[in-house]
Amino acid sequence: MGSGRNGLAAVSERFAEATAVERIGDGRWSAEILEGWDIVGRAHGGYMLAIAARALAVATGRRDPITVTGHFLTPGRSGPVTIDTDVIRGGRRFTTATATMRDGDGRPLLTVLGTLGDLDESDGPELIDATMPAVPDPADCVLMVPSDPLPPSLMSKVELRIHPDDVGFYKGEPSGTPQMRGWFRLRDDEPIDSVALLCAVDAFPPTTFNAQLPVGWTPTLELTAHIRGRPQPGWLRCAFRTRFISGGFLEADGEIWDGAGRLVAQSRQLALVAKG
Amino acid sequence: MGSGRNGLAAVSERFAEATAVERIGDGRWSAEILEGWDIVGRAHGGYMLAIAARALAVATGRRDPITVTGHFLTPGRSGPVTIDTDVIRGGRRFTTATATMRDGDGRPLLTVLGTLGDLDESDGPELIDATMPAVPDPADCVLMVPSDPLPPSLMSKVELRIHPDDVGFYKGEPSGTPQMRGWFRLRDDEPIDSVALLCAVDAFPPTTFNAQLPVGWTPTLELTAHIRGRPQPGWLRCAFRTRFISGGFLEADGEIWDGAGRLVAQSRQLALVAKG
Repeated sequence: MGSGRNGLAAVSERFAEATAVERIGDGRWSAEILEGWDIVGRAHGGYMLAIAARALAVATGRRDPITVTGHFLTPGRSGPVTIDTDVIRGGRRFTTATATMRDGDGRPLLTVLGTLGDLDESDGPELIDATMPAVPDPADCVLMVPSDPLPPSLMSKVELRIHPDDVGFYKGEPSGTPQMRGWFRLRDDEPIDSVALLCAVDAFPPTTFNAQLPVGWTPTLELTAHIRGRPQPGWLRCAFRTRFISGGFLEADGEIWDGAGRLVAQSRQLALVAKG
Repeated sequence: MGSGRNGLAAVSERFAEATAVERIGDGRWSAEILEGWDIVGRAHGGYMLAIAARALAVATGRRDPITVTGHFLTPGRSGPVTIDTDVIRGGRRFTTATATMRDGDGRPLLTVLGTLGDLDESDGPELIDATMPAVPDPADCVLMVPSDPLPPSLMSKVELRIHPDDVGFYKGEPSGTPQMRGWFRLRDDEPIDSVALLCAVDAFPPTTFNAQLPVGWTPTLELTAHIRGRPQPGWLRCAFRTRFISGGFLEADGEIWDGAGRLVAQSRQLALVAKG
């Protein structure tokens, strides 16, 4: 799948192919967690969620995840996985289903509950009580380039540019505000469909990297994304913010806006915070 | 269960009893959606979610829902229901499981994905980048008294006091800001456990009642709650806010704080907005 023309072997690998699923039985799908879609060896959560959502889209015959919740059970590794889907209810506009992804040894990695539909069918009154996150132009943000161990190899798969005010943590200078803002797109400007948004909502460095707290790894327990629209081609404007680090948990709230100035996704995840 | 001493027959019915489940098989539970726990005839979503969470707590042997997502499939009515639970993975600290509630005819009403644990085991660094919602004392807020059709009969089951600035919608004077703030407690000051918080996060009138928009019924498609602590006894300070009404959907974000000034729950729901 990759270009093989440089050290980042799979740099031009398409996201659509990297998340492809194949039917292997009634409500059973196979897929592969590809090399490089990881954070220090652990498969990227948003990427795994997107694979599961592809299975849900095929299983339900619905194009768009509308609201998807994933609970992360075991860190994933590159290699083959199976996904079992179960349709709970199909209605006129929406279908609700579960998906559980297991690795080659049958260990559950991720379980998902989603309601899928067709965003083209949606319409209604509009009231936006919010402004777009303030982020300088992509050219004035800081491109994430994979290194060892960080930034992670995932950064060779997607293209991330971080707000200059939020990137000081890499030099040991966290901003003090637990937020992360910037731009996201797929490599070679591959169009971002509603499933790929599930990768984008989890692609940025943890907000805690900008908190002046002794916090290290913050594994995601659960991530919920609402897909509010199919994005226009091009860069996505992203902002993630944490307000409550307490009792061993934190939430991170995300917003993604497209180039037309429309909110296309909201996300919230609950992550664990190790004892200090 | 009720006192039977006045027109609101079940006014002193305990929430713990109203959400009780009984084991009827391997991973199968029976419960009853009691009369009066409804909004104009439709069973209250948070109440149904609490019943399902009770089944999950027993099925997993874990006391506290940590993160729970419910997808609402069909409006519920009073009467017997069954709940099928399926444990996906039990770990050292957490257990993840699904629950599907069906009515007497086998129709799926609600399907839930939850991770449960023990909030006592949680600890870690603390950083709160938020302030408590500003709400006048309960005595200075407006008590919701059930009427026909609204406020709903649910208001005889729980006690709600709404911020005077947010209650004008009942006189046809919406504030113009899609938010709803106030206080929640159970009747007779019954202690609110982590499961009862799932009722509280859905108990307030829709934020859209305060939007100056031609919006009527906004059925909940999905609700996710993070339970961040077990509340102290007494009133809970609650605030719900909507920022994006667009494309036929809206989100409503909730925060619940206890009398000790601690955030005990965060919630977000995705609801449908009918075409204007």
